[in-house]
Amino acid sequence: MVLVATRNPLNIGAAARAMSNFGFESLRLVNPFPASFREARSAVGAAEILAGAERYKTVADAVADCTLVVGTTAVRTRDLQHPVRRPEYGARRILERLRSSNVALLFGSEKFGLSNEDLSHCHWLIRIPTCKKNISMNLGQAVAVCLYEMVRKSSHERAAKQWKPATAAELERITSLLLEALQTSGFLDRRRVSDADERIRRLVRRLHLPERDAVIWLGMLRQMLWKMNQGGKSDT
Amino acid sequence: MVLVATRNPLNIGAAARAMSNFGFESLRLVNPFPASFREARSAVGAAEILAGAERYKTVADAVADCTLVVGTTAVRTRDLQHPVRRPEYGARRILERLRSSNVALLFGSEKFGLSNEDLSHCHWLIRIPTCKKNISMNLGQAVAVCLYEMVRKSSHERAAKQWKPATAAELERITSLLLEALQTSGFLDRRRVSDADERIRRLVRRLHLPERDAVIWLGMLRQMLWKMNQGGKSDT
Repeated sequence: MVLVATRNPLNIGAAARAMSNFGFESLRLVNPFPASFREARSAVGAAEILAGAERYKTVADAVADCTLVVGTTAVRTRDLQHPVRRPEYGARRILERLRSSNVALLFGSEKFGLSNEDLSHCHWLIRIPTCKKNISMNLGQAVAVCLYEMVRKSSHERAAKQWKPATAAELERITSLLLEALQTSGFLDRRRVSDADERIRRLVRRLHLPERDAVIWLGMLRQMLWKMNQGGKSDT
Repeated sequence: MVLVATRNPLNIGAAARAMSNFGFESLRLVNPFPASFREARSAVGAAEILAGAERYKTVADAVADCTLVVGTTAVRTRDLQHPVRRPEYGARRILERLRSSNVALLFGSEKFGLSNEDLSHCHWLIRIPTCKKNISMNLGQAVAVCLYEMVRKSSHERAAKQWKPATAAELERITSLLLEALQTSGFLDRRRVSDADERIRRLVRRLHLPERDAVIWLGMLRQMLWKMNQGGKSDT
């Protein structure tokens, strides 16, 4: 990760924090504003990365040991001399290369981005797909998005969420109990519909209940039914 | 986008900027620190979003018109009561729902994240895959990554499922009525649990109720509640 001519110390800190969040280590700064470098010491969890950050006078020096140099840009129309890739495609190429050698990912200054001189060191560019209305991202956020894209690719989809659905038998017990409760409460009396059973059965099926919830609903219905019957009994 | 109890005005500004970068409009703040709200006026290109930001006293109010409420968390191990999804999968679900209705994406405070009470309003959670060494992301960066994931996906159009989900306000009405019914029936008396409200709220969210069913459940609960109270009255 190479930051070129960064002005705001908070942005250096934010970049370091995102690196630490996503497991990247090497931070290089090309001509940061002097104050920025001194003050960027407080980003949460990023102390190690900031302490190890190296300063360079030129982009050429900063990327010297890399076999792939990738720039970032917000611009669509500047007459770019480089292929511009979307982050997902760019990330794949970067990850492939990282297996065998170092890769530099360059971010320009908050105000001007990467200069043409900076860009000339790059093999190609990444552009995050922002809206026309406001193409320019905050530096720390742009870094986070690019690094996230790299991590996103590297970790494979886990198996689907483990949840155990209720069995048909459990759903049917709920249906019966609910029907009984509705009759007792007078709900079904008020609206005489011939297919009440089926309607309620479908209603319960539409809940997509997990097994553990089915047990709770059964308990709640039983208790309400008991209470309703209590009232009735105490009448007599 | 709903920010809960945000402290740092820079983070509110950063969230607004990312929204503007990725084409999202509605920003809602639940109990921001007063200074945060006043000072968060300078984020580049985000003036419009900040000017239109709405403040709410409770999460329930802020998400009332949404049919899907998604929380965010950095935590792996806190005994979460919700399904936790990766951003790419979560984004897909959110985009699907956005075609037909509002979705709330919740971010907690910088220090504590979302509280259990906040989480109980959520249907499920998103976790950005950060490293164990430093799981906690900067708020503005986390927002940027989540919104980026949504824009990234939006090119992949898929067929919409046509069903109209219940709004958070309707689910909250069901929750209140169910709680009242459970108290009246003695169900909640039997099992004294301090977080009964939250448990029941989550239970209702897990039902994934369509709007038309929400109306029916409300009617059924109201009738059962009436009946239980009838019984009580005839005692005296």
